[in-house]
Amino acid sequence: MHARALKKIWSDGGTAVGAMVMADSAMIAEAMAHAGFDFLIVDRQHGAMDEGTAVDMVRAIGGAGIVPIVRVPSNDAATIGRMLDCGAGGIIAPLTDTPEDARAIVAATRYPPDGKRSWGPVRAGLTGGPDYAARANEAVVASGMIETRDGYEALDEILTTPNLNALLVGPNDLGFSYGNLPKPMPDDPQVVRAIESIPARAAKAGAMPGIHCGDAAMANRMIALGYRWISLAVDLGYMVDGARDALGRLER
Amino acid sequence: MHARALKKIWSDGGTAVGAMVMADSAMIAEAMAHAGFDFLIVDRQHGAMDEGTAVDMVRAIGGAGIVPIVRVPSNDAATIGRMLDCGAGGIIAPLTDTPEDARAIVAATRYPPDGKRSWGPVRAGLTGGPDYAARANEAVVASGMIETRDGYEALDEILTTPNLNALLVGPNDLGFSYGNLPKPMPDDPQVVRAIESIPARAAKAGAMPGIHCGDAAMANRMIALGYRWISLAVDLGYMVDGARDALGRLER
Amino acid sequence: MHARALKKIWSDGGTAVGAMVMADSAMIAEAMAHAGFDFLIVDRQHGAMDEGTAVDMVRAIGGAGIVPIVRVPSNDAATIGRMLDCGAGGIIAPLTDTPEDARAIVAATRYPPDGKRSWGPVRAGLTGGPDYAARANEAVVASGMIETRDGYEALDEILTTPNLNALLVGPNDLGFSYGNLPKPMPDDPQVVRAIESIPARAAKAGAMPGIHCGDAAMANRMIALGYRWISLAVDLGYMVDGARDALGRLER
Amino acid sequence: MHARALKKIWSDGGTAVGAMVMADSAMIAEAMAHAGFDFLIVDRQHGAMDEGTAVDMVRAIGGAGIVPIVRVPSNDAATIGRMLDCGAGGIIAPLTDTPEDARAIVAATRYPPDGKRSWGPVRAGLTGGPDYAARANEAVVASGMIETRDGYEALDEILTTPNLNALLVGPNDLGFSYGNLPKPMPDDPQVVRAIESIPARAAKAGAMPGIHCGDAAMANRMIALGYRWISLAVDLGYMVDGARDALGRLER
Amino acid sequence: MHARALKKIWSDGGTAVGAMVMADSAMIAEAMAHAGFDFLIVDRQHGAMDEGTAVDMVRAIGGAGIVPIVRVPSNDAATIGRMLDCGAGGIIAPLTDTPEDARAIVAATRYPPDGKRSWGPVRAGLTGGPDYAARANEAVVASGMIETRDGYEALDEILTTPNLNALLVGPNDLGFSYGNLPKPMPDDPQVVRAIESIPARAAKAGAMPGIHCGDAAMANRMIALGYRWISLAVDLGYMVDGARDALGRLER
Amino acid sequence: MHARALKKIWSDGGTAVGAMVMADSAMIAEAMAHAGFDFLIVDRQHGAMDEGTAVDMVRAIGGAGIVPIVRVPSNDAATIGRMLDCGAGGIIAPLTDTPEDARAIVAATRYPPDGKRSWGPVRAGLTGGPDYAARANEAVVASGMIETRDGYEALDEILTTPNLNALLVGPNDLGFSYGNLPKPMPDDPQVVRAIESIPARAAKAGAMPGIHCGDAAMANRMIALGYRWISLAVDLGYMVDGARDALGRLER
Repeated sequence: MHARALKKIWSDGGTAVGAMVMADSAMIAEAMAHAGFDFLIVDRQHGAMDEGTAVDMVRAIGGAGIVPIVRVPSNDAATIGRMLDCGAGGIIAPLTDTPEDARAIVAATRYPPDGKRSWGPVRAGLTGGPDYAARANEAVVASGMIETRDGYEALDEILTTPNLNALLVGPNDLGFSYGNLPKPMPDDPQVVRAIESIPARAAKAGAMPGIHCGDAAMANRMIALGYRWISLAVDLGYMVDGARDALGRLER
Repeated sequence: MHARALKKIWSDGGTAVGAMVMADSAMIAEAMAHAGFDFLIVDRQHGAMDEGTAVDMVRAIGGAGIVPIVRVPSNDAATIGRMLDCGAGGIIAPLTDTPEDARAIVAATRYPPDGKRSWGPVRAGLTGGPDYAARANEAVVASGMIETRDGYEALDEILTTPNLNALLVGPNDLGFSYGNLPKPMPDDPQVVRAIESIPARAAKAGAMPGIHCGDAAMANRMIALGYRWISLAVDLGYMVDGARDALGRLER
Repeated sequence: MHARALKKIWSDGGTAVGAMVMADSAMIAEAMAHAGFDFLIVDRQHGAMDEGTAVDMVRAIGGAGIVPIVRVPSNDAATIGRMLDCGAGGIIAPLTDTPEDARAIVAATRYPPDGKRSWGPVRAGLTGGPDYAARANEAVVASGMIETRDGYEALDEILTTPNLNALLVGPNDLGFSYGNLPKPMPDDPQVVRAIESIPARAAKAGAMPGIHCGDAAMANRMIALGYRWISLAVDLGYMVDGARDALGRLER
Repeated sequence: MHARALKKIWSDGGTAVGAMVMADSAMIAEAMAHAGFDFLIVDRQHGAMDEGTAVDMVRAIGGAGIVPIVRVPSNDAATIGRMLDCGAGGIIAPLTDTPEDARAIVAATRYPPDGKRSWGPVRAGLTGGPDYAARANEAVVASGMIETRDGYEALDEILTTPNLNALLVGPNDLGFSYGNLPKPMPDDPQVVRAIESIPARAAKAGAMPGIHCGDAAMANRMIALGYRWISLAVDLGYMVDGARDALGRLER
Repeated sequence: MHARALKKIWSDGGTAVGAMVMADSAMIAEAMAHAGFDFLIVDRQHGAMDEGTAVDMVRAIGGAGIVPIVRVPSNDAATIGRMLDCGAGGIIAPLTDTPEDARAIVAATRYPPDGKRSWGPVRAGLTGGPDYAARANEAVVASGMIETRDGYEALDEILTTPNLNALLVGPNDLGFSYGNLPKPMPDDPQVVRAIESIPARAAKAGAMPGIHCGDAAMANRMIALGYRWISLAVDLGYMVDGARDALGRLER
Repeated sequence: MHARALKKIWSDGGTAVGAMVMADSAMIAEAMAHAGFDFLIVDRQHGAMDEGTAVDMVRAIGGAGIVPIVRVPSNDAATIGRMLDCGAGGIIAPLTDTPEDARAIVAATRYPPDGKRSWGPVRAGLTGGPDYAARANEAVVASGMIETRDGYEALDEILTTPNLNALLVGPNDLGFSYGNLPKPMPDDPQVVRAIESIPARAAKAGAMPGIHCGDAAMANRMIALGYRWISLAVDLGYMVDGARDALGRLER
């Protein structure tokens, strides 16, 4: 499934909801893909999957009809290109701290003349149709992450980057960079103000604001703030929380 | 972790609680192993993992300090032996329909003279200590499954099998064999009566009665009936239920 | 993709065309799935893929919208059940030499009361919808293989088996069993007569006749004989033949 | 590398020396293959490798120029056929207890009319040349194992099996079946007598006698008894013994 | 197989012909290796294989007796070193745009004092013989790619790099960088002139000129221009083209 | 197992002994972990394992109760972070040639404010307890390598880096950089002097000096020089040396 489905939700004014997948399993990715999300993020930065399993997960998610997005370990053009060639509908690069970082994401995700992506869409070309070369740039979501104080302070400059489609806020690391221990929903007033101010500024610049949320309550608060794509918790978290809850209900 | 920990719970009069793991991922198995269960069942009958991944999962579960049990695809001595060699603390063979089936499980899980397990404990020997050959038979749980009408009707004969440590009831398939569609908790009176009658008969014969349960409510009911080991739902179920619940709480 | 698509081609009077996939690669399976076939056969009998890779290939083929069929290594209920649970739309069991063999295939592929398939559709349940238990028996193709003299001579008895959906002829092994070296298109008159007589007899009994063909010329001849599903050559064969042809055109 | 190299050693009157490989790694198999052995046994009965890794190991061993033999988990025709198709130069089936067992090994390893191997040499055909179908039966070593009292007592009957190329003695399990704990070199007089009597009887019947040995001392003793192929210890054993020895020499 | 075989073809005045392998499969690589090529390029830049599978493919290609070359995802010394340690006979680094890029390739592929490759030839040392450290620099082919306008314009500077053994032209990306959509054989006159001018300049500087070709017709044209190594199409292309051709010949 | 166990050995004044693991196998890693070492180094720089297998090996080593350390392919923050998230107890980055290199290692291994490690301990969080974020910096060993002349000449500057826990000397590459072919124990006087001078200088600066040794004799010499952690040879070396020794004792 190409990221056009995600762009369509946005152009229709909607809010897209996905989740992070951290396990190393296409079966897990596929089960999550049938749970009702619009997209899933295969987390190659912190997840347990290696590159080959990530490709299997991208295939499973796309085969289930939703948009597979890969968060790459670093803002590296070769890695980004491989994931797009293997069928990722979108890329999230971590640590977008400067406008140079943002331009690097765009350069790695778009073919010339917009960018410098190299030709060879081994899987993407299968579903992309005979005119994939001409239309690929529209079929991909290029996103960075605002997850450090540096990144937040450079936000407006970052947002001048052409073809940067979206930005995802990482609240745990953002809080960490302000001197707090990681928390799903930071309570440091500086971090809270940052989180509150991002949606309008990003949206105005044409980059869809998104954020990772620990639970539905936080997600609802973020949607109300104007976030347009939500990464709603994590595969392993759903599983372990459910197991602990069931164990807690036992009478033995 | 050897199955002695499980046998200890039983000899202390306790009830052990585990879960089925169906995903193809050591990470998933390990996360489940840290959730609070006493054992986990790597489901090679219906799960998505292949043999190699099952071994990785057994390693992950044992490394987390709980008992890894493997449900093998069929009651086959070679397969059972491989899983024990690779460190499974216990084996559940499906479709124990006759006393011959039960004797085959025991023969495959125990070294001579009790059984016919072949020597070569490639992983089990690492943690089993220098006297593994002498003590292995005590370190393994051999279990069958009562999951067909045939098996239930042969229960007392099956229970005459020496060294059959346990039996697990499969309610979905048991109901199916009585002509009902599969249900986590069957409501066909014949099936309910079967489920109610098994614990006392099995326990009396020295085989620990266990049952797979769809949720904590059913588990509590089964514990009250005398079941001493509970397979409490499934990794994928916890995850998908949690994800759907979170999605259902969104306001967008 | 469920095998309903394949049954639809047949009920519409059409002929389905697929191919064997022998490489150990989901990428290969997916590329073949985009080449224009109606189905693909993941060959676990002679192919290079192990069980886990076969599941990845089934996922890739189904995700590309065509029917994934698995030829299992042997007529074994546990193996057949695992492949169906993991999403195979159909099963081909080798060496259907007796009516007992044929009944075993049906028993392994259908839920009670038609058969003895065990409940636990880990992947198949994701796409199968909430009523999968009730409808699964219709969503699966159960096929045997006629590939020995014994099997051919028992054909009419084999064809009395209820719910045997199809039969695939294996010309190489059929010829071998008559004392000839394997050939894509046998020329031994006895084997040729066998191949000519099967379609009408199978179709009359309600089992779709199919055959593996080495090339399009043989396929056309077989379609003219009444074969309704064609396994048209092999992934590795297409690749190596193409490479050799290109090398042969070089001037150096 | 075809097993012809092994048969050549035997027909030249030599003794072949190999080892068991139990780790799940093509790198390990390849390093062992460069250590000086004539063949290696990929141990799918007790080793840690799954089927797919076994194929990688067979490829690595053959690529290094020595004969890859696979000990299959059980005497199962489908499994044996798969390993031969994937390039095994020889097969060892465990638990040859009866002449029927021995005939099953031969049937599974040889094409008609000698046996019932099914056609489809996906890897073996690459190196086997254009006349592989005609010559494959000569290119494969079919071996059973004498590792139980039953097997030993049926030895002469077993040795009447045409085309049974070899037999490997498993001293650990043979001792176990006589009521002793497993030992690399059994000291039970009955077992010792069995081990002493096998070489002449097997050689006379045309089946090369072989035996697994724990170390070079035992191997020399067995060679002196007339054993013509020696499985000289195990990859993991060499490694762990070496590591322990080095640790024991430390002064700290 | 060391790259000496490739250097031998060149020193004998010949033209070497290989192909790109993009699937994630040692079986595919091995089948291609038996098709008649002098070398194969495992394409880690655009192919579907991960690093581990690339090593399996290198092993399969080398075991079949031809030269395994790896195109790495980026011009990164650690990645290049790993592939050489694991047995690659040659390296192609993408995007050789500057002489610094070219020197980086050489530094990563050669041991001191010529370069900075780090010691640890885990696989390469097995076949490299006891004097591998002394002879490794001669046993490896170091190649860059001319695939951008920048690279072409810096060609003569790039060619001053000592020990740069070869250069491969990537026509698709080269065309892309001149503003054209990717085409196997570019028709933009600037690109055509570039392609025509490279062989003589590279050969004069001692770097063997090579180019990727879509088919034999283009290859013949390129050989006539003086290209000395040809990457003749792609595994997946041969396969899919063959399948489509066969499907197109069906009459149904 | 966290690296606290390793730090405890050091704070108690002891010397820790481990080994390099280069094979691609969790089974190998686990067998080595039971051989008596305090830690093992999964060698992702020169070893045969890919990233996913490295994680399996880390799990196996930790599950066996000793400290898993990963030598990463290069001094790259994303790679280091992934290995720590997946449970590595320590990191060795190659090629510590400058103080900037050393600071990069520390930044990648420690959470803010000490470093820039990103939050997401997918496996490390399972065993790390509820306060992992607060205590992780103490639970990890950050080490560089002195393996070039540049690195040695910058040693004192490198040692000013806060929180650099250790340094490992690589004698093969160190000798190479001085113009000698690699040798387990260099004999170039300059290199010998370097190796002799490092322990006192490193220990004084609070970075534990370590070195890779080819055998116990060298290790004893190095321990006497003040080295506090020893990488005692390599898995493959133990295995192959043992096999060759056994083969050399045969009389045939």
